[in-house]
Amino acid sequence: MGSLSSLNSIYIDRGSFPKCLNEIKNSRVKKLCLRASVATSAPTSLQSEEFKAKKFEKFRIGVLGASGYTGSEIIRLLANHPNFQITLMTADRKAGQSIGSVFPHLVKQDLPDMVAVKDADFSNVDAVFCCLPHGTTQEIIKGLPSSLKIVDLSADFRLRDVGEYEEWYGQPHRGQELQKEAVYGLTEISRTEIQSARLVANPGCYPTSIQLPLIPLIKANLIEVKNIIVDSKSGVSGAGRGAKEANLYTEIAEGIHSYGVTRHRHVPEIEQGLSEAAKAKVTVSFTPHLMPMSRGMQSTIYVEMAPGASTEDLYQHLRNFYEKEEFVVLLKKNEIPHTRHVRGSNYCLMNVFPDRIPGRAIIISVIDNLVKGASGQALQNLNLMMGIPENTGLLSIPLFP
Amino acid sequence: MGSLSSLNSIYIDRGSFPKCLNEIKNSRVKKLCLRASVATSAPTSLQSEEFKAKKFEKFRIGVLGASGYTGSEIIRLLANHPNFQITLMTADRKAGQSIGSVFPHLVKQDLPDMVAVKDADFSNVDAVFCCLPHGTTQEIIKGLPSSLKIVDLSADFRLRDVGEYEEWYGQPHRGQELQKEAVYGLTEISRTEIQSARLVANPGCYPTSIQLPLIPLIKANLIEVKNIIVDSKSGVSGAGRGAKEANLYTEIAEGIHSYGVTRHRHVPEIEQGLSEAAKAKVTVSFTPHLMPMSRGMQSTIYVEMAPGASTEDLYQHLRNFYEKEEFVVLLKKNEIPHTRHVRGSNYCLMNVFPDRIPGRAIIISVIDNLVKGASGQALQNLNLMMGIPENTGLLSIPLFP
Amino acid sequence: MGSLSSLNSIYIDRGSFPKCLNEIKNSRVKKLCLRASVATSAPTSLQSEEFKAKKFEKFRIGVLGASGYTGSEIIRLLANHPNFQITLMTADRKAGQSIGSVFPHLVKQDLPDMVAVKDADFSNVDAVFCCLPHGTTQEIIKGLPSSLKIVDLSADFRLRDVGEYEEWYGQPHRGQELQKEAVYGLTEISRTEIQSARLVANPGCYPTSIQLPLIPLIKANLIEVKNIIVDSKSGVSGAGRGAKEANLYTEIAEGIHSYGVTRHRHVPEIEQGLSEAAKAKVTVSFTPHLMPMSRGMQSTIYVEMAPGASTEDLYQHLRNFYEKEEFVVLLKKNEIPHTRHVRGSNYCLMNVFPDRIPGRAIIISVIDNLVKGASGQALQNLNLMMGIPENTGLLSIPLFP
Amino acid sequence: MGSLSSLNSIYIDRGSFPKCLNEIKNSRVKKLCLRASVATSAPTSLQSEEFKAKKFEKFRIGVLGASGYTGSEIIRLLANHPNFQITLMTADRKAGQSIGSVFPHLVKQDLPDMVAVKDADFSNVDAVFCCLPHGTTQEIIKGLPSSLKIVDLSADFRLRDVGEYEEWYGQPHRGQELQKEAVYGLTEISRTEIQSARLVANPGCYPTSIQLPLIPLIKANLIEVKNIIVDSKSGVSGAGRGAKEANLYTEIAEGIHSYGVTRHRHVPEIEQGLSEAAKAKVTVSFTPHLMPMSRGMQSTIYVEMAPGASTEDLYQHLRNFYEKEEFVVLLKKNEIPHTRHVRGSNYCLMNVFPDRIPGRAIIISVIDNLVKGASGQALQNLNLMMGIPENTGLLSIPLFP
Repeated sequence: MGSLSSLNSIYIDRGSFPKCLNEIKNSRVKKLCLRASVATSAPTSLQSEEFKAKKFEKFRIGVLGASGYTGSEIIRLLANHPNFQITLMTADRKAGQSIGSVFPHLVKQDLPDMVAVKDADFSNVDAVFCCLPHGTTQEIIKGLPSSLKIVDLSADFRLRDVGEYEEWYGQPHRGQELQKEAVYGLTEISRTEIQSARLVANPGCYPTSIQLPLIPLIKANLIEVKNIIVDSKSGVSGAGRGAKEANLYTEIAEGIHSYGVTRHRHVPEIEQGLSEAAKAKVTVSFTPHLMPMSRGMQSTIYVEMAPGASTEDLYQHLRNFYEKEEFVVLLKKNEIPHTRHVRGSNYCLMNVFPDRIPGRAIIISVIDNLVKGASGQALQNLNLMMGIPENTGLLSIPLFP
Repeated sequence: MGSLSSLNSIYIDRGSFPKCLNEIKNSRVKKLCLRASVATSAPTSLQSEEFKAKKFEKFRIGVLGASGYTGSEIIRLLANHPNFQITLMTADRKAGQSIGSVFPHLVKQDLPDMVAVKDADFSNVDAVFCCLPHGTTQEIIKGLPSSLKIVDLSADFRLRDVGEYEEWYGQPHRGQELQKEAVYGLTEISRTEIQSARLVANPGCYPTSIQLPLIPLIKANLIEVKNIIVDSKSGVSGAGRGAKEANLYTEIAEGIHSYGVTRHRHVPEIEQGLSEAAKAKVTVSFTPHLMPMSRGMQSTIYVEMAPGASTEDLYQHLRNFYEKEEFVVLLKKNEIPHTRHVRGSNYCLMNVFPDRIPGRAIIISVIDNLVKGASGQALQNLNLMMGIPENTGLLSIPLFP
Repeated sequence: MGSLSSLNSIYIDRGSFPKCLNEIKNSRVKKLCLRASVATSAPTSLQSEEFKAKKFEKFRIGVLGASGYTGSEIIRLLANHPNFQITLMTADRKAGQSIGSVFPHLVKQDLPDMVAVKDADFSNVDAVFCCLPHGTTQEIIKGLPSSLKIVDLSADFRLRDVGEYEEWYGQPHRGQELQKEAVYGLTEISRTEIQSARLVANPGCYPTSIQLPLIPLIKANLIEVKNIIVDSKSGVSGAGRGAKEANLYTEIAEGIHSYGVTRHRHVPEIEQGLSEAAKAKVTVSFTPHLMPMSRGMQSTIYVEMAPGASTEDLYQHLRNFYEKEEFVVLLKKNEIPHTRHVRGSNYCLMNVFPDRIPGRAIIISVIDNLVKGASGQALQNLNLMMGIPENTGLLSIPLFP
Repeated sequence: MGSLSSLNSIYIDRGSFPKCLNEIKNSRVKKLCLRASVATSAPTSLQSEEFKAKKFEKFRIGVLGASGYTGSEIIRLLANHPNFQITLMTADRKAGQSIGSVFPHLVKQDLPDMVAVKDADFSNVDAVFCCLPHGTTQEIIKGLPSSLKIVDLSADFRLRDVGEYEEWYGQPHRGQELQKEAVYGLTEISRTEIQSARLVANPGCYPTSIQLPLIPLIKANLIEVKNIIVDSKSGVSGAGRGAKEANLYTEIAEGIHSYGVTRHRHVPEIEQGLSEAAKAKVTVSFTPHLMPMSRGMQSTIYVEMAPGASTEDLYQHLRNFYEKEEFVVLLKKNEIPHTRHVRGSNYCLMNVFPDRIPGRAIIISVIDNLVKGASGQALQNLNLMMGIPENTGLLSIPLFP
């Protein structure tokens, strides 16, 4: 667990007072935020008596859209979180139900029943995870108290260019002011901005798996930004819990297929991140595949190296860039990342391989699409926004086999 | 987290001093054991500085046979355990390797390399989990220092009758003294004996899923002990990590089959437990099935109720028996346990259903075979043996989907 | 291929003229039926020229409800059938579409587009497979020309007692005259009646897997009819292609659960068949389980043997009963049936095992729920009804792995 | 079945007498070969009496290495083949066993027991499928009677350059004369040569899926031969039935990983085929992935189009090239091939998609790795070699779901 201390130091390196203090108005959050950053952090599992006593001192968390997979994953991750406590859960069609009736694996959680979002009382909430569909999300977030910290897991605030949003999502953006405020929450890349953000647009799963290896390499001019070819493979949970014929067990098991070839909505998000790193417009080839696993995502990325660069250069740069990170792990040379080695965890494993074609390299990264690709990174971000160590509640080990 | 306090009180009800104090000779263990039972327990994830300082005050744990699935599961569960620290791992064929090279999902664990068991130094070990094959186990455990606490996950010490052992395992028992000392570790049933045990024989996965519902019902004379029919379904990890044609993906996926019909080695263990509860010889019908899932086990149990008993009686008795337990959960009426709702966790979900045939009932229980059916229950037992709250390190939520 | 001749002889033993001749009014069917039974049967795959020439001489088949899994399975099985040719397919919501657009695995089939059932022209149809939902089915079949041969795969005509139908299906039966006419199509048990039937109620999947082993044993008084306990495990395709949350990949993979405990609608069908064999009311315990496989079904059946009967008696009786059958195979002693060894085929494998409890036996049978449990048996029945060898088009080998 | 006639005509276009006649010495084969090509082909399933009579007139087939997956797949495909009859099966470690004991899904096949290859009697064999490991294969084939037709499914005779063989397989080639004689059996590309071959080197699964779309495009100069990037995904059966830890269910289910990055042994075979088409050395980027399905393979291929070429050009060229083929199917525009839509069948589905990056295209092809990628194509080849229609025995429909 030595990695923990390094992360603490990352945190402390970036300012002896949490950034969140500077800007927040909610005085209760301010007080807790301060406490969290200077006090010995609260313990996790053996402390119920103590915690019950000071329950009021935990941050109070709302989960909007608790009946989907990203919502339930937030709840799972928060179950043993020492500083966060869920006080509100919304789910319009399941309003009035307990979380255990909707997600029986959460039957032991002692949580309030779900309510419709229109009936939600935000007065006892310090921060929310917004796990709602795109489109709806903008309207809901516009209506939230401005004192709330928000991590939004939808696509609604990821694209800086609202024109692009309109093009890819087929509807005008109705929260353009919020869009300007939103910080894109790829944690390891934008940690400082996230710490002081009120609204974080949590990255999509594919963009996370692709940008984590590519942004550092592009910034360092080690790879060409033309002809980046990304072949991604995703588990089915990324498609959500909605009942669709295409996602039935019988339609998914024992097979693979591409989908949304060249037209997947994560394309503009990927290109936005890479373009920003390159300080030039980047167009990528991106082909996602759906395969028979519930969780997991691999991106196999084919790149041209910059003139003079070698795979060794790429490897060393990524090693330096991520060596103090808790969750992004460059494997030893030749070790191949497997999605099943990150299942249920917030880790991203990656590696770089030489290609047979001279001058090219192959980069592989794997994540759990529901954790680092969604709810885990969202928690990592909210930890930062609240001024507590960003790995809090995220150190569970991958579940294998 | 409310459930935690109830477990603490269970623990405290059973004596204000941990049982382990009475019998152990190792003074360091004694001291830690005392500390663990009276001090506020150490926290889990935010405490690395503090912990590094007093690292020596954690119990030092050995994992014998770390290269199999039950071994790696112990390591996963201990990764965030506040009171236990792995200081020794053995694996004969993988001696000299790191755990991350054998189990890449553990690549972030900072642990000593594996050694051959013959080269193991037990001087810095307080307790061991023994995850070795039956047969071998007896010899190894005979050679361990008597100061060590041991939880043995093999079958070697589960059967009180060494004649029965010989019959089912086809070899004489070479550790009969140890057999007499061993306590059968079905935690919720034998908690008191486990607390004071030095050597615990951790139950098999099938016997755990079957005895947890049946023993209370038999003891209360609510069911007949004749014609108990058990149809169990197991995930493949129960078969271990050995390379066998029968367990290849291609031989397991998309199908089901019975195996070991009437001859599975868990039969004598099941019958031993039920017979003891019944104070009479019980013979069961037991048919295990292998199915395409890595983890998970369901036992569907068909019983005749005692004259005058109803499914309501069975339900209420199980409710009363387990209501204060952390890990054994009787679902609400009509709710059906699913194995996927306990995946990765130490929970056992169960329920009782009326049968169409008058006078009969159907009992369903589900566990994760690698957790409550093996390494999780083993940790629950060692927690008890060491005098710390038995749910320590075991509160992670099931992973779904 | 040796098995073929035995089946032919079974057929011929039952009458040198096909039964279908006696009752049918459609003269074209009569002519073809006669031809089929006396001529050397038409060949399968190398005969296209010859077949094109006499294409009109094939029986013309309609598939009502072609957009579901049982419908597509009929189409798959008929693709190389030498005597049947699909001339009509209905699917209300997919009317106007080609089969290849709805089921891309059928893209090479040269078939008419689907039409709404109300627009169907039955004038060029000799027989139909009706793959529609229960309830709807009655109305549709009432409206069909009386010259058509019909195999109905729904539950609508399986229960002789319309009161029982009403009780289990929650609606009155609106085709009681047809119900009286319908023959229950468990082929190996009711071959003679099926040969002369106009309307066959094709058995459900669970009832097929359960009745095939039990009916002969009950008729021979080798087993008790009390306390028959059936634990069945099914693949997901049995639930159809409808979009339901419960059948999503993410909700099914890597787990098992019971469903409809004691209340599954196949119960009255099973009890009807066993009661008829026993000439007394039989009540069974029946618990189905849903598991992660697309196709396949196992029934593990726990029975009390009649006084004096042994598992050897049961084994020998089943051997004698089924030894001339093509599709029902009693394995060698101790060989355990696996569902994956019948995948995609019309076979039922079964075996008998002694139980540990004296006087009891365990019977295991496996089928592919979509073939012998649905469309395969339906084709077997229509072959019989049309006077052609019943194995025609059904001899493909199971697909393994 | 309309497709059949087109194939017949393809056949006939290529010579009114089968090529096999010109070179074979075995007079019995010659006679049958002639008969097959001129007579109305023998029928398949309803003809047992007739067939038993002239059983001696079927070609007699040996399967060397019948205990592996490609061997069992040959047996499955031949079960209903009208012109081929298995008279010899070898399997060294399973010698003396029946095929049903090794592959229970073949339990109904009436076939000779397996023998060790050293004990095989080739006097009653006209042709063999050789399903042995590379290396071994050379020695065995050298020892076979020269009158035998041979389709070899190993890699031993695929590489024309024995130096390359030595480099990739780490051993010298011990059958260089045979290597010169061998014809590479990518059926649709080399049909003429295959018809007159005695020894066919059956292509690997990956090379089949990659070369079928690429060779026509390269020959037509529609794509650049530099920077061809191939990301392939395979089911596990390609790894064979050998017991390996890496292929256990628990190690494969619910995850994906790349393997053999840049070093997979199919690379030289792929590059050989493409280089030959290009009449220049082609080096490809090839990354295979192993995923949780037993059967199926997808290659997602990223190419640069030749100057002036469009995806429409690529599409039309492939349409023209394959429109008369039975087994290679270019889907309608925008339709995405799924592996599950070819499962169990000999089809290859493919399509062409525009890329976001101007000037690039994405080509997707799917096959069943055990059928078109191994045993199915082998049978297609032997059909050709024996002078019978090449689709004989290969027209079964994919199994879905």
